[in-house]
Amino acid sequence: MKILITGGGGFLGSRLARALLARGELGGRAISKLALVDGAFPDDLPADPRLEIVKGDVCELEVDRDTAAVFHLAAVVSGAAEADFDLGMRVNLEGTRRLLERLRRCERAPRVVFASSVAAFGGELPPVLDDSTTPAPQTSYGTQKVIGEYLVSEYSRKGTIDGRSLRLPTIVVRAGKPNAAASSFASGIIREPLNGVVAQCPVAPQTGVWLLSPRRVVEAFIHAHELPPAAWQSGRVVNLPGITASVAEMLEALGRVAGAEVAGLVQFKPDARIQSIVKTWPVRFRTARALAMGFRADDGIESVIRDYVADAGIRLG
Amino acid sequence: MKILITGGGGFLGSRLARALLARGELGGRAISKLALVDGAFPDDLPADPRLEIVKGDVCELEVDRDTAAVFHLAAVVSGAAEADFDLGMRVNLEGTRRLLERLRRCERAPRVVFASSVAAFGGELPPVLDDSTTPAPQTSYGTQKVIGEYLVSEYSRKGTIDGRSLRLPTIVVRAGKPNAAASSFASGIIREPLNGVVAQCPVAPQTGVWLLSPRRVVEAFIHAHELPPAAWQSGRVVNLPGITASVAEMLEALGRVAGAEVAGLVQFKPDARIQSIVKTWPVRFRTARALAMGFRADDGIESVIRDYVADAGIRLG
Repeated sequence: MKILITGGGGFLGSRLARALLARGELGGRAISKLALVDGAFPDDLPADPRLEIVKGDVCELEVDRDTAAVFHLAAVVSGAAEADFDLGMRVNLEGTRRLLERLRRCERAPRVVFASSVAAFGGELPPVLDDSTTPAPQTSYGTQKVIGEYLVSEYSRKGTIDGRSLRLPTIVVRAGKPNAAASSFASGIIREPLNGVVAQCPVAPQTGVWLLSPRRVVEAFIHAHELPPAAWQSGRVVNLPGITASVAEMLEALGRVAGAEVAGLVQFKPDARIQSIVKTWPVRFRTARALAMGFRADDGIESVIRDYVADAGIRLG
Repeated sequence: MKILITGGGGFLGSRLARALLARGELGGRAISKLALVDGAFPDDLPADPRLEIVKGDVCELEVDRDTAAVFHLAAVVSGAAEADFDLGMRVNLEGTRRLLERLRRCERAPRVVFASSVAAFGGELPPVLDDSTTPAPQTSYGTQKVIGEYLVSEYSRKGTIDGRSLRLPTIVVRAGKPNAAASSFASGIIREPLNGVVAQCPVAPQTGVWLLSPRRVVEAFIHAHELPPAAWQSGRVVNLPGITASVAEMLEALGRVAGAEVAGLVQFKPDARIQSIVKTWPVRFRTARALAMGFRADDGIESVIRDYVADAGIRLG
């Protein structure tokens, strides 16, 4: 089967690609080709004959007509979409619409997993959100993701794709460098200290984060694809499970894993712009539907950090 | 002040135009110009120097930079958007997006009233919907309207417009001819018999309709515009009040108003395509927020019919 990952050069996209190549199959079908589309790619992608690297714009993307699975991860991240409205609308909204249009030309309706976000939620929120909470985004990024969900549902209803939208928690710990996502700090305050580097935290210690690890979200992408269509009949969108941790709890856990000296490398430096975005995001969820569908969260923030240490090959003093 | 009505040649648009010209002001400001944009116009629009008729496509619309108020009613109706997916996406989604882009160029953020629809709702619905019910449209039209709402909210958040989205019940009794809206029958079974013409009803007598009269919806458009921005701070979308009536109740009321012979002109002729769309629409609402904001429903189906008789100048035997 042929698979396409948009945003395949990104942190999650390339990690998903590695996982797919390693397992060799998806939904019981051998993977013959895995196309990654993105503007840039990491240097260390595996040399694999199944892998096809397509450098380009998701808005101009051509799709092989025998593509059977699509993971649509390409997006301008939250901070960048807020700073450049036109760019966010073009890539996140128009890019998604164009991709769905191209998928109409496929020989058989491809199965599409769309990476949405809890940035879908905002405004006057209950203390604990659940599967009935209505999206009311307070950012351009969140708006574009919600619209993407409705498009994925509509094209699915029309039968031109078989779509599944996952509302991702903040992904912690991301490898690599800080990016323009407003949530970038949530990984930075773990990752930088573990690398012996000072990290600046733009939000207050009591700030809560609804999070999921890179390991669990890659599992979720694959699980979402492999669930039968009947599992999605009551709705094509699901809030993924996650855990809630405050910045203070994250730093305490970092101290337990790597020592107080490492945790002490985090400095608080309030940033009003980041805070104004982050404060609109929800912190606590009941994700009954996702759990019933077999999605799962991490065991706790400490295990999230230990997984990162293992995945990154960090040797703790 | 300059006002623009998209879909200004349609039944509701031209009726709103007449009401605005008659009152002469909007929000306390004298109306200097009222531009109606549409593909076609009724012959009996008033000769009024303030009126500007613009024949054209909403997707290609130019907007005067000093436009202060916009009523965005232009849309491909539900049945047509379902039959021609590309047309609905182009006019209802892309047309709305392009209009909002053009409004960014206005000298001051115009106030925008967007006609959304209860077709926003569908799927697994509670018996009575309320302000917390999450839209899950089961038609292309409904999807395009929900996406329009999110766009109106986002452009409002960004401050380029001051937008307000109204989810309209089915409007009963519409004057004129049947159209491609799946809800067209709800007016036809009143209007045609009153004109001595046989009407075919494509749905069963027990089918419920959530409805609002043309008088009340024109009032709602104007009221939505005149409410201060603070009234919309907790959200830019509102479910308008309405009343619930079954087809059988509508025909009973018609009989009371015009006699059993008139009501007897309705024939039941099931249409699976219409039924498949109508059955996804909600029938009962609690509209606490709209009522608190000063929107109002009709007194009952009989008064809706009597208002139509009066407005259409029909003389009952």
